[in-house]
Amino acid sequence: MKYILGVDAGSTKTAAAIADETGKIIGRGNSGPANIHQPDSKKNLKKAIDNALADAGIKAGKFASACFGVAGTDTPKSLKKAKDLVSKIISAENLQVYNDTMLVRPACSDKKYGISVVAGTGSNFYGIDSKGREERVGGLDYLLADEGSAYRIGQQGMNAAVKSYDTRGEKTMIENLLLEKFKVKSIRELANVVYDKNFGKYEIASIAQVVDYAYSQGDAVAKSILSEAAYEIALAINTLITKLELEKEDPSKWDIVATGGEFMSPYPFEEKVREKILANKNNFMVCKTEPVDGAIKLALEGIK
Amino acid sequence: MKYILGVDAGSTKTAAAIADETGKIIGRGNSGPANIHQPDSKKNLKKAIDNALADAGIKAGKFASACFGVAGTDTPKSLKKAKDLVSKIISAENLQVYNDTMLVRPACSDKKYGISVVAGTGSNFYGIDSKGREERVGGLDYLLADEGSAYRIGQQGMNAAVKSYDTRGEKTMIENLLLEKFKVKSIRELANVVYDKNFGKYEIASIAQVVDYAYSQGDAVAKSILSEAAYEIALAINTLITKLELEKEDPSKWDIVATGGEFMSPYPFEEKVREKILANKNNFMVCKTEPVDGAIKLALEGIK
Repeated sequence: MKYILGVDAGSTKTAAAIADETGKIIGRGNSGPANIHQPDSKKNLKKAIDNALADAGIKAGKFASACFGVAGTDTPKSLKKAKDLVSKIISAENLQVYNDTMLVRPACSDKKYGISVVAGTGSNFYGIDSKGREERVGGLDYLLADEGSAYRIGQQGMNAAVKSYDTRGEKTMIENLLLEKFKVKSIRELANVVYDKNFGKYEIASIAQVVDYAYSQGDAVAKSILSEAAYEIALAINTLITKLELEKEDPSKWDIVATGGEFMSPYPFEEKVREKILANKNNFMVCKTEPVDGAIKLALEGIK
Repeated sequence: MKYILGVDAGSTKTAAAIADETGKIIGRGNSGPANIHQPDSKKNLKKAIDNALADAGIKAGKFASACFGVAGTDTPKSLKKAKDLVSKIISAENLQVYNDTMLVRPACSDKKYGISVVAGTGSNFYGIDSKGREERVGGLDYLLADEGSAYRIGQQGMNAAVKSYDTRGEKTMIENLLLEKFKVKSIRELANVVYDKNFGKYEIASIAQVVDYAYSQGDAVAKSILSEAAYEIALAINTLITKLELEKEDPSKWDIVATGGEFMSPYPFEEKVREKILANKNNFMVCKTEPVDGAIKLALEGIK
């Protein structure tokens, strides 16, 4: 029996799946984060694969094909680092290592090309056309390019709360919601919380949930922040459509598949993004399937 | 002879000055940063004062009056920390410890009240009215509220460069200028630079100079970023004018004094901010005097 391995190594968790040569999944395993820049990436990659092997009831050996989608591989240098690391962990006749964004579309779509969208803690956008030409936009993390992400929404939520407090900006309930969330008495005391060494990217992204809640209560400032995020997601998609000239391709052959926490917001991100898409807008969908299943599909394609 | 001490403890350097009881400065000393949250704040405060004492040719003793403006004292807790620290370093019959923003207006103005503006690495805005009522807006550092600061300009410059590169946004020469500044071949490689552990708030703020240069070469994106910063500085000033009802006060009795690296930009910040001020716009000035001279004035007032 030949086995296929798929791995989605993300910034918050890692998922591995093992399939037989028909693509039927026979084992799954999870572990902690394995973004290539995280210190435990090797340990967590290995652990997720070991857990999947145990679940499938098979021993480690040579896989017929394996596909890894690894977060943080946004430069040629970091992608090479991921390939080197993966080669040390497993052996496969056919091995593919990509940025994790690439798994999104195959996980939900059987079409051969199109656009993958990730809008979670960070945001990332990848597209491929019928000739195999690839393009990326954004995907450079919170300092350089995270438009449409939970991080950016959280950051704008904090800024709006301060401006509401000191009357520079419109009043928003995000102000009081942040006091409750962080158990402080005034907005000025938030400085003690957010400049603590344990407060980082993920903590800022968690403020997106506060903005979501404020939106659900009718808060106009929250609505405006979320509306800008939807605009940025659509802008990234439209940029890829234009760069890859997808509007000239047969609309039945490509699609746009999205995933990430943003799409669980009470704000209707799926609808608002779709409205703004310039071409093939009805082929935009939010994927409920795990991206690791996209890795299995890509691994299978590798041996066809 | 009675001596007066003034200290401006900033996030990049500390300046101390010693004056005689007429206010004539007889010694000056400098040292490294002493933002209350920085590890060397005690050492640098002591060093700047010791240097000023040596320059004046006098020995440490009890000062008749002393005034400290300390950066990072944006909450009651951090201001108390600064007061405790200062009390351990010097002894004074009359001791005042404030946020460093408070030194700006007295440094350049003999009027009794008005607004202080700092727009450097960070931004901070403080106002006081004829009844002694104080108000602050912003001044909560780069994550919470740094609108109009070099940090924010640098951050927007980076985001604009990425958007220019991946064609999401308007083309800007900031893109190529960043490649030159950080000696990388592509925008995607910037990730290796900006996520390095040695790249922080000050390095991002240094990108404001790149935006300044692009503006001086006619770059429209750079102009738009700097214009937004001027808008934010004016918004903060106008908010303080409204909160303190300064528009109802005698316009000859109060003024608005600004300092910080922003005002050295080729972009005409002084003119653009003044245009937008709602009341007493002709009393807005950029202060060329060192803020430590404001500390001496406040210390002198303390014994009058």
